[in-house]
Amino acid sequence: MKSSAQPAESAAEDRASSRDALLAAASDLMRARDTLVVPISDIAAKAGVNSALVKYYFGNKSGLMRALLERDLSVAITQLSELVEMDMRPTTKMRYHLSGLIKMYFKHPYLQRLLTATMRDETEEVASFLAQAYIKPIHVAYERMIREGVEAGEFQPIDHKFFYFCAIGACDQIFSSRYVLKYIHGVDEIDDDLRRLYIDQAIALIMGGLQIRA
Amino acid sequence: MKSSAQPAESAAEDRASSRDALLAAASDLMRARDTLVVPISDIAAKAGVNSALVKYYFGNKSGLMRALLERDLSVAITQLSELVEMDMRPTTKMRYHLSGLIKMYFKHPYLQRLLTATMRDETEEVASFLAQAYIKPIHVAYERMIREGVEAGEFQPIDHKFFYFCAIGACDQIFSSRYVLKYIHGVDEIDDDLRRLYIDQAIALIMGGLQIRA
Repeated sequence: MKSSAQPAESAAEDRASSRDALLAAASDLMRARDTLVVPISDIAAKAGVNSALVKYYFGNKSGLMRALLERDLSVAITQLSELVEMDMRPTTKMRYHLSGLIKMYFKHPYLQRLLTATMRDETEEVASFLAQAYIKPIHVAYERMIREGVEAGEFQPIDHKFFYFCAIGACDQIFSSRYVLKYIHGVDEIDDDLRRLYIDQAIALIMGGLQIRA
Repeated sequence: MKSSAQPAESAAEDRASSRDALLAAASDLMRARDTLVVPISDIAAKAGVNSALVKYYFGNKSGLMRALLERDLSVAITQLSELVEMDMRPTTKMRYHLSGLIKMYFKHPYLQRLLTATMRDETEEVASFLAQAYIKPIHVAYERMIREGVEAGEFQPIDHKFFYFCAIGACDQIFSSRYVLKYIHGVDEIDDDLRRLYIDQAIALIMGGLQIRA
């Protein structure tokens, strides 16, 4: 047993690492080039694997993109669901969530655009699945967080559906418009300092709008 | 004179109307299909003109897209500059601007995406021109509107650079994620009622964050 188990485990590890390497390469290239349109050959070359493996692991490029959404969003959705259950003041909870949202876009600046484009380009069935998996849980969380905030006398009764668009838009926009930073502010990369400043200012604005007035 | 002036005027009108028809067709198709990628042949067919006229009037498809940005944004930028000069309370002025911004995205839901994509795909020279023509004036207006609001004791001292991203993102997001409306809320089109509701809620949130607390 032992002599055959060893190579089998290594082969499994190799498989996992080639698959992960392709996802990481696609992510890195979309981030670096600020576009969703990256050729499979470039992704495979950066991952250091044969481009036929894209077909093997993901079926096609759309499959790779869906797997990337899964990689980047499923943990975030789980964390949000856990956050909602925590015993914490509604204001603290929402601040914590918005900060995490901006950090996620900082790490994967293509994410919101990829989700939108994938929902547009895929079949209705896939688009509906993506909506249920990655967007509906945010709506459920916002509905409850805002309701609890209103009940605690901390939030205004803002409709969670509209809050979703405003919060996602405000948190994502700086990452979707990198060229504004470049040509208006002479900033090529969003570094940690700028990210922290954006978190502070965006949260101040959104929370200021959400909280009740004294 | 008279006999020759008449046909010359008509020819000029025809030229203007073919050019305008191509712009209107491109705009309508991008809006209807919720994408920036529309073939020239489809645009020409919808405009009812020969597709060679795209080359004649705009050089190529990029030229047509730049002309569309010019058509949709130059009036808005002029109106914003005029609004800034008006003798009006800072709060009223900003509310008026945000309402106009959402109405503009309602009319041209592709606009923010087209501007971002064009700046990414064009040469540095063109991108820099677009930034100076259509983005810098918004920053200049926000800097002054927020400064005057702070001086009047109405606004908090929010950095106008970050306010730009938050406000544009919050106002644009519902138009950039039409599939969220479709698959989460079962809404196929943003109608006038939904637009009015979104204006109310987005402005309440943004202005709530911007205004000082009593």
